[in-house]
Amino acid sequence: MSRKPLILLTNDDGIGAPGLYSLYQSLWEIGDIVVVAPSTERSAVGHAITLSDPLRVQEYERDGAFFGYAVNGTPADCVKIAYWAILDRKPDVVISGINLGINTGINTIYSGTVSAATEGAILGIPSFAVSLATFHDPDFRYAAKFSVQLTRSLLEHGLPRGVYLNVNVPACAEEDISDVFITRQGQAVFKEEFDKRIDPHGRVYYWLTGQKVDKEKDTDVDDGAVQAKGVSITPVHYDLTKYDFIQTLQDWRLRV
Amino acid sequence: MSRKPLILLTNDDGIGAPGLYSLYQSLWEIGDIVVVAPSTERSAVGHAITLSDPLRVQEYERDGAFFGYAVNGTPADCVKIAYWAILDRKPDVVISGINLGINTGINTIYSGTVSAATEGAILGIPSFAVSLATFHDPDFRYAAKFSVQLTRSLLEHGLPRGVYLNVNVPACAEEDISDVFITRQGQAVFKEEFDKRIDPHGRVYYWLTGQKVDKEKDTDVDDGAVQAKGVSITPVHYDLTKYDFIQTLQDWRLRV
Repeated sequence: MSRKPLILLTNDDGIGAPGLYSLYQSLWEIGDIVVVAPSTERSAVGHAITLSDPLRVQEYERDGAFFGYAVNGTPADCVKIAYWAILDRKPDVVISGINLGINTGINTIYSGTVSAATEGAILGIPSFAVSLATFHDPDFRYAAKFSVQLTRSLLEHGLPRGVYLNVNVPACAEEDISDVFITRQGQAVFKEEFDKRIDPHGRVYYWLTGQKVDKEKDTDVDDGAVQAKGVSITPVHYDLTKYDFIQTLQDWRLRV
Repeated sequence: MSRKPLILLTNDDGIGAPGLYSLYQSLWEIGDIVVVAPSTERSAVGHAITLSDPLRVQEYERDGAFFGYAVNGTPADCVKIAYWAILDRKPDVVISGINLGINTGINTIYSGTVSAATEGAILGIPSFAVSLATFHDPDFRYAAKFSVQLTRSLLEHGLPRGVYLNVNVPACAEEDISDVFITRQGQAVFKEEFDKRIDPHGRVYYWLTGQKVDKEKDTDVDDGAVQAKGVSITPVHYDLTKYDFIQTLQDWRLRV
C-alpha cells in the first residue's frame, strides 16, 4: 500500500491563525498533514533563526479538529525543528501560510511566511508560501483551494533544488479571480515614515510606517498580477549572487 | 568646497562591538562617519524589521573617541531610521560590520550584517557587509584596511541599483592573505542538530546546533575563497526571482 504524501504546514501568524486552519482543512484530501508553527505571531521576522534561546515544542489541539506542534520560535525554526527533531520521515511538501497580508516585491525578503518556504527549499523539499492580499475580513477559501491544486502539481512535477514558490492570492470572490500569472518579484520601493512621538515620561520614540510607491502594473510582476485580481506565482531561489556583475567587479582590480 | 563623503556604519553585533569600532577608526581618513547601530547584539535576526514595537534612538559615546546612535532594533531598522529620521543628507556608502564570524553560503540569507547592506541597497546607496571569519581572538585590522580600499572603489565606481557586496575576510595576518576573489554564494547545506535537554522543571527544550557539510573548495565560491586565505567579495542582489524557471512554471498550466 503506497503511503500518502506528508505535508508540513507552518506560518508566521502563529498556530492559532485562521489561514493555517483553512489550509489544514483543505489539504487532508491529498495527504497526511503535520503542523509545526510558531506559538505566537512572528510577522516581519524575516529569515531569523533562534540561536540564543532554547526552543520548546508543545502539542496543540483545537476543538478536536486541529492538531499540531507549537514552537516558541520563528517560521524558519519551525521547519528546521520539524525536519530534524519532530518528523520521522522527510516531508514531500512544505507549505507556509495562508498569510494574512500580501508578500510581494521587497516584502518577499522581510517575510517570515516566505522564509519558512526558503527553509523547506534548503532542506531539498518542494515548498511554497501562500499569502492572501488583505488584512481585513479575510476569506481564505479560494487561497486554500488553489493551494490544493498547486500541491498536486508540486507532487507531480517537483522543483529543482533551491527553487521554491511565492504565491499571492487576491482578496476577492472565486468567480472574480481573473487568471493565474507566473511573475517576477516587483521592484517597487517603500516611502517610509517614522512617526515621532513623546511617551508619558517625556522620551522620544518612533513608529515605522510606510507605503509602496510606483508599484508595477504589468501582470508579469507580482504586485501587478494581484492588482489585476490574478493569482501570482513567483519562482524564487535563495542564491543571492548577482552573476552578471562578477566580471565588472573583477575589473575593479581590488588587491590585497 | 566639496563635501566629504558621508558613510553610514552599522552592524548586528551591537554598537559596543570592537569590529564596528575598528571600521570607525579606519574610515575617518576618507569621509564623515555616522554610526547608527543596534543597542544590543542582534545576530541571526535575518532581514527582520520592527513593526510591533516602538523604536528608540539614544546618543552613544565611548572614551571621547567614538560617537553614534544606538537603536533598540535590528540592523535593517538602523539603516531605515538613519535614512528617514536621523541623517540630514543621503549617505554615499553604507557599511555593515565588521561582523564577528563568517557570513557565507546559506548564512548570507540569515545574516543581520548582510541585511543592513540589503537595506542600504534598497535605498539606492552603494553598500557592503564585511565579516571576519573567526569567533575567537579577532584582529580586525586587515578587514578594516581592506574596507577602506573597497569604500574608495565604491565611491569611484558606484553600484547598479539593487546590487550590493558581501565581503568575507579570513582570520589571518595581513602578510598571509593570498588574494582578493570575486565569488558566488556557496550552496553547502547545514547538517543541523537539535540538542534535546530537560530543564530543572522536567520540561524538554532544544538547542539548535549545526555545521556546514560539503563546503565548496573553489576560490570562485565564497567559502572556498576564505578557506584559501583570500578575501571573498560576492556581488548580491535582493531580487529573489528564479527567472529561468518562469517558462517551466508556465508549462504547468495552473488554472483558476
